[in-house]
Amino acid sequence: MTRLVTTVEEMQALRESARVEGKTVGFVPTMGALHEGHLSLVRRARADNDTVVVSVYVNPFQFGPQEDLQRYPRDLPADHKLAGSAGADFVFAPTDAEMYPAGFQTYVEQFTLPKRLCGRFRPGHFRGVLTVVLKLFHIVRPTRSYFGQKDYQQSVVIRRMAGDLHCGTEVVTLPIVREEDGLAMSSRNRYLGVRDRKDALCLSEALVIGEAAIRNGERKASAIVDAMRERIGRVKRARIDYVACVDPETLAAVKTVEGTVVLALALHLGKTRLIDNRLVAP
Amino acid sequence: MTRLVTTVEEMQALRESARVEGKTVGFVPTMGALHEGHLSLVRRARADNDTVVVSVYVNPFQFGPQEDLQRYPRDLPADHKLAGSAGADFVFAPTDAEMYPAGFQTYVEQFTLPKRLCGRFRPGHFRGVLTVVLKLFHIVRPTRSYFGQKDYQQSVVIRRMAGDLHCGTEVVTLPIVREEDGLAMSSRNRYLGVRDRKDALCLSEALVIGEAAIRNGERKASAIVDAMRERIGRVKRARIDYVACVDPETLAAVKTVEGTVVLALALHLGKTRLIDNRLVAP
Repeated sequence: MTRLVTTVEEMQALRESARVEGKTVGFVPTMGALHEGHLSLVRRARADNDTVVVSVYVNPFQFGPQEDLQRYPRDLPADHKLAGSAGADFVFAPTDAEMYPAGFQTYVEQFTLPKRLCGRFRPGHFRGVLTVVLKLFHIVRPTRSYFGQKDYQQSVVIRRMAGDLHCGTEVVTLPIVREEDGLAMSSRNRYLGVRDRKDALCLSEALVIGEAAIRNGERKASAIVDAMRERIGRVKRARIDYVACVDPETLAAVKTVEGTVVLALALHLGKTRLIDNRLVAP
Repeated sequence: MTRLVTTVEEMQALRESARVEGKTVGFVPTMGALHEGHLSLVRRARADNDTVVVSVYVNPFQFGPQEDLQRYPRDLPADHKLAGSAGADFVFAPTDAEMYPAGFQTYVEQFTLPKRLCGRFRPGHFRGVLTVVLKLFHIVRPTRSYFGQKDYQQSVVIRRMAGDLHCGTEVVTLPIVREEDGLAMSSRNRYLGVRDRKDALCLSEALVIGEAAIRNGERKASAIVDAMRERIGRVKRARIDYVACVDPETLAAVKTVEGTVVLALALHLGKTRLIDNRLVAP
């Protein structure tokens, strides 16, 4: 049976028991509304470790005032069941009061990475992500932590934090899981109506176009980005945040493709913000 | 023999050995130039724990561009010996390259505490302190960590961080150690010339005057601060950063003394910045 844990204290005590028994701990932090992307992380954590912890916590600190915190999908009983089916031993689902008690005021930030890509459009977002992930690292003390490549920038900032601060957990990033037609899985896909769902294909298709351009020998980033923008432009209602070709480590825009790059994009369809990316080695 | 450790990796391996053996670890982070204040922390760590680690690291990230990073006193052989005489098992003295490798960019910050008192005059200082202390916590994984009350604000921001982020170390603050005439011990006292040394008594004497005012029934913070300022004013060359009567937890200025307060002050004598404080329960 997968045990539901709701307090920091209980989670720490369970983690300490695992430590005493010499067990490795795999950790999958999530905001719930679990889909196959999350479950692929849980299964890998199960395969790699003695104990698997999945956290389910919609972290208010990483949402902007105009964002979808209130309507973000929440279904803990379903998540509990899904996490269990993929091999979780513990589902850690703390309350806001448990995570951010009165007087809370410490946060983690980075100088440049959070200002790139999504960070330009979601000020404070990565501060919130870094802070909650560090807190969760301290509570769960994982041997290995698993993140999806779907949130590419997130995986980079967390890997950087883990190294810079000596967090003592191995950060593992696993490939994007897609629907049959190519749409990257996301908890926010639940927001999509029929028309949105069809239009949303422009993200993955633009990335395929960008990759093809590189495979065909294009090295000028601006030409690659233009080709991707052309595909998105066919969806008139898509409001683009960015379409970018960036360095996989620094996330800085690349002018000429020389090594591996990340093609990344973010756009809005109605009230829903969608992101996708693709690592391409020329 | 007290072992000198200079790499993060070796320190982590030694800490892991202590863990396997079930030993508790006491930690005293310092910037070196050890004096009796530091040694009182080491002795207490020795009494409380199986293993004692003293770090000696002049953290560049907590110095402002106009501050005394370059001339800050450094004498590792002497510190090594002193730490050993007080009971340290390990002296951890990493290089800057070890602590801040190329590309380093993660830091820890707080919303309000670092803006009070010294933080108003040393922007970025507590960011540097919090970041290096968190890194050291991750490397040393101490059961208990020891700080001097001399750096009162530092002890408050670190205690807050340890709680907010679940750092898993008990933060212990120990009393200020003073010279016979009352001057609070500080590595920066080495900068003081004969005249400075005499003038520097105005700090501890102002605090005694402030405390006496409270003991005599004064409850108006402005009157208490004025009495302290009057004493400092007798040293014409003293350049005051602040003289304050604050809440011991939030560090916010108090108007009327109702519970315990901290009397705190900072001033410059020539090129040397000195601080001191006193906890007073009415």
